[in-house]
Amino acid sequence: MGHRPALALHGGAGVLPQERFPSDLADSLQAELLRCLAEGWAVLHAGGPAVEAVCACVAALENIPWFNAGHGAVLNADGRVECDAAVMAGDGRCGAVAGIRSVRQPVHLARRLLEEPGLVFLAGAGAEAYARREGFEAVEESYFVTAQRQQELAQARKTGTVSLDTAERFGTVGAVACDGQGRLAAATSTGGLTNKIPGRIGDSPVIGAGTYACDDSCAVSCTGIGEVFLRQVVAHDIAARLRYGGQSLKAAVETVVLDELPALGGEGGLIAVTPAGELVLCHNSPSLYRAWQRADGPPQAAIF
Amino acid sequence: MGHRPALALHGGAGVLPQERFPSDLADSLQAELLRCLAEGWAVLHAGGPAVEAVCACVAALENIPWFNAGHGAVLNADGRVECDAAVMAGDGRCGAVAGIRSVRQPVHLARRLLEEPGLVFLAGAGAEAYARREGFEAVEESYFVTAQRQQELAQARKTGTVSLDTAERFGTVGAVACDGQGRLAAATSTGGLTNKIPGRIGDSPVIGAGTYACDDSCAVSCTGIGEVFLRQVVAHDIAARLRYGGQSLKAAVETVVLDELPALGGEGGLIAVTPAGELVLCHNSPSLYRAWQRADGPPQAAIF
Repeated sequence: MGHRPALALHGGAGVLPQERFPSDLADSLQAELLRCLAEGWAVLHAGGPAVEAVCACVAALENIPWFNAGHGAVLNADGRVECDAAVMAGDGRCGAVAGIRSVRQPVHLARRLLEEPGLVFLAGAGAEAYARREGFEAVEESYFVTAQRQQELAQARKTGTVSLDTAERFGTVGAVACDGQGRLAAATSTGGLTNKIPGRIGDSPVIGAGTYACDDSCAVSCTGIGEVFLRQVVAHDIAARLRYGGQSLKAAVETVVLDELPALGGEGGLIAVTPAGELVLCHNSPSLYRAWQRADGPPQAAIF
Repeated sequence: MGHRPALALHGGAGVLPQERFPSDLADSLQAELLRCLAEGWAVLHAGGPAVEAVCACVAALENIPWFNAGHGAVLNADGRVECDAAVMAGDGRCGAVAGIRSVRQPVHLARRLLEEPGLVFLAGAGAEAYARREGFEAVEESYFVTAQRQQELAQARKTGTVSLDTAERFGTVGAVACDGQGRLAAATSTGGLTNKIPGRIGDSPVIGAGTYACDDSCAVSCTGIGEVFLRQVVAHDIAARLRYGGQSLKAAVETVVLDELPALGGEGGLIAVTPAGELVLCHNSPSLYRAWQRADGPPQAAIF
């Protein structure tokens, strides 16, 4: 291996300060993050590609109802599920889906599009029809729905809010990786915002906004107030600061996450990795549920 | 006016070389482009904002059946219309819609989202339900459909192609403007590709890919092979080359359009403007249907 593998994942940005966060929840949350990290690290450790590692992490996170992606995705204003996901490899291949409610692992559908030379982005019923043709099993929408998310929607309807001020606020999940050959990848998956207007697409599935990877610069996965990340084209902006501005990953990420986004109401955070295996995980929200591992280092997890 | 207004529009990139292009068609095409340009120039001349000027141009282009946007949009593999549009102001406000088949002027729906602080991107039935709530008249899908597009779909189905090798190939429309106060805007509208897979979203409605504006750098509207423009985040990449790399608009556009995109199969072109009123219109395809005007200069149109 000429390069040192590195892997990071996030399970969204949270709004509870540390003193109000249940400590037993923090422990089990970090254990889950580490379990998902291990899925991706096994790929890298075996010499596998970065794109497979990020998909392994994100698929594992989608299966945990605590996070707002796949099983446990939040409900829109009609009480329906609309999952969005994207994956990008540093060689420019990418796939993205929006408005998915019948594919168990939305990130796997995005991954399938990444393999299509002439397709990148599919939405809604057309994306689900494509999934059927490609052999993805159809799951009932009820697979995604949890009692917790139904309660959150009922509460959001009562208060007329579109996002909930709970620990679950941004449970978007994502991962970035550098593999042993210096190839990068990023993936992101989300259910969006509780009580969101049907048809709303946030930054997660938008290549350049919530998800981006280029082997010459970095791979980025974002979480937070999607509309602000869309306007700022955040993930590609980080890469452009490296490529054209010669900024370090740390300087680029901190300028965007700690200076620019807060001024625009862009609460959230992101994770990023360079071909040298440098990892940066940064948030302007009270917390970012995250885990990471570098070559020869131990897996680590943190919340605040 | 402290700034010199400038305006440009495009009606897509074409594939016919000049010697095979009917000269009477060229004349009437340029007359139409100039008529649409005048709609936007009237806004700038009256001291109006760039965002209103680009929407006036694009709305006029949507109404002309020759172009692949609004009335005359191409048909997908199911024989259905799916219009996409985006508009962005240089102050960061933006709106985008995908999969529209009941709103006469998709760019006006995108413009409505631009005015919403908490929303950017809506797709499909949810976007159309939003349009109804906002008072947009519902038009029958047949409003968009022309005999020409039905013939093109029949031909595409016969040959199994997703895009047609005719003069109509890329009839996406777009506009960029700098107003008298140095404010920028960009707008793009398209029916996508003939015989496209239902649900497919190209670069046009994706902020950063086909459409982008920032008052500190430039405004950009693209047309071409959407998937390549999506992967390259082309519009934001142009802006980032100016902002972080100190490149001139001309150098940035020519590097991307003439060097990078052709190597990736990214046939097409783009139009761009800076706050100084500098206009660049560039294409690697045989033609780019275009028109432009600078302060104190005459309106001009070109194809090749």
